[in-house]
Amino acid sequence: MLIDQHAIAQQEKRYRVNFINSLSGLKTAWLVGSRSPQGEDNLALFSSIVHLGADPALIGMVSRPDVVPRGTLDNIRSSGVYTLSLATEEFYRQAHQTSARYLPGESEFVATGLTAQTQAGFAAPHVAQSPLAIGMALRQIVDIELNNTHFIIGEVQWVDVPQGAIAGDGLVNAGALQPALVGGLDYYHRAVALQRLPYAKRPQG
Amino acid sequence: MLIDQHAIAQQEKRYRVNFINSLSGLKTAWLVGSRSPQGEDNLALFSSIVHLGADPALIGMVSRPDVVPRGTLDNIRSSGVYTLSLATEEFYRQAHQTSARYLPGESEFVATGLTAQTQAGFAAPHVAQSPLAIGMALRQIVDIELNNTHFIIGEVQWVDVPQGAIAGDGLVNAGALQPALVGGLDYYHRAVALQRLPYAKRPQG
Repeated sequence: MLIDQHAIAQQEKRYRVNFINSLSGLKTAWLVGSRSPQGEDNLALFSSIVHLGADPALIGMVSRPDVVPRGTLDNIRSSGVYTLSLATEEFYRQAHQTSARYLPGESEFVATGLTAQTQAGFAAPHVAQSPLAIGMALRQIVDIELNNTHFIIGEVQWVDVPQGAIAGDGLVNAGALQPALVGGLDYYHRAVALQRLPYAKRPQG
Repeated sequence: MLIDQHAIAQQEKRYRVNFINSLSGLKTAWLVGSRSPQGEDNLALFSSIVHLGADPALIGMVSRPDVVPRGTLDNIRSSGVYTLSLATEEFYRQAHQTSARYLPGESEFVATGLTAQTQAGFAAPHVAQSPLAIGMALRQIVDIELNNTHFIIGEVQWVDVPQGAIAGDGLVNAGALQPALVGGLDYYHRAVALQRLPYAKRPQG
């Protein structure tokens, strides 16, 4: 079924939000932890997380003004650090619940029953229940004027992951950590391994 | 197990590439179709695709100079259009094979046995085998100076998807289309639905 630009423009607003949000496929769900200058912990669901490069070790994420609580971006700007905690099948309902509009001063950790944990000397909390937590330092915020979103680029400072999840060649086997994947804004999935493929080479001869 | 910045800096180069690439979790695998000014079709594997906004309908993707064939970016710059085709469990091996370094003039379609299809009047091919193809028009290329990557932002021009995959509220059920998910550079997974969750609200009272 072909849906052209005209048909997309005719979609009712909420329908269109679901339609376009879901076009980018399934995405790993992450919780971004940050801390305000007043010491208040904040936790927000992000699914637009992308690898940017290995050296320096950069990860990007999209902050949308209309969806993500403003607290996260403010905290990242002021403290310069944040965390990524992988959301899993075990607590994806709580992860999803962090997207509710809590009042200023209410902690999403307390509200959802997730446990805030802090690496010594690091000014942002991560989720104790998560098997993969990453400490990040802000490197750049790219303002995207097309729609007032922000592309937040950070550098990996530390990684907390079970040793058994790291393959001999360095690959962190995220699929074995029961990650929650989200389609659109709310359709959760789990992952099942198929196989690792060898480095692709052009056939010779 | 805590791996700090010092430990990451000590990682052997190839180990580090696997480690950092896999930190961002599982990502939906996409094939980006483009066409050169000479009419040569190009197909390249991308997994760093993010939703940027619903109105205008924007999708971003990361182009890394060291990994992605240069042809794709050149073609997008010159023609202004490209396509995204969802890679599925059925043909993820062929999708992966497109990342081999073919010679200039060799088409990844021909080399891997995937079929190039073209929407009438659209100057970029998509993959006939894919159940979800999206036509994109280039809107902006953000050059990220931190590591010479490019963040390519495009606007959705058309979507080709089975009608039965679209829920009543607009959500495209990508999980039902047997998408291939990739961890790191090469570990493929499939997805299994858990559940849709309702819009998260703050409990009252």
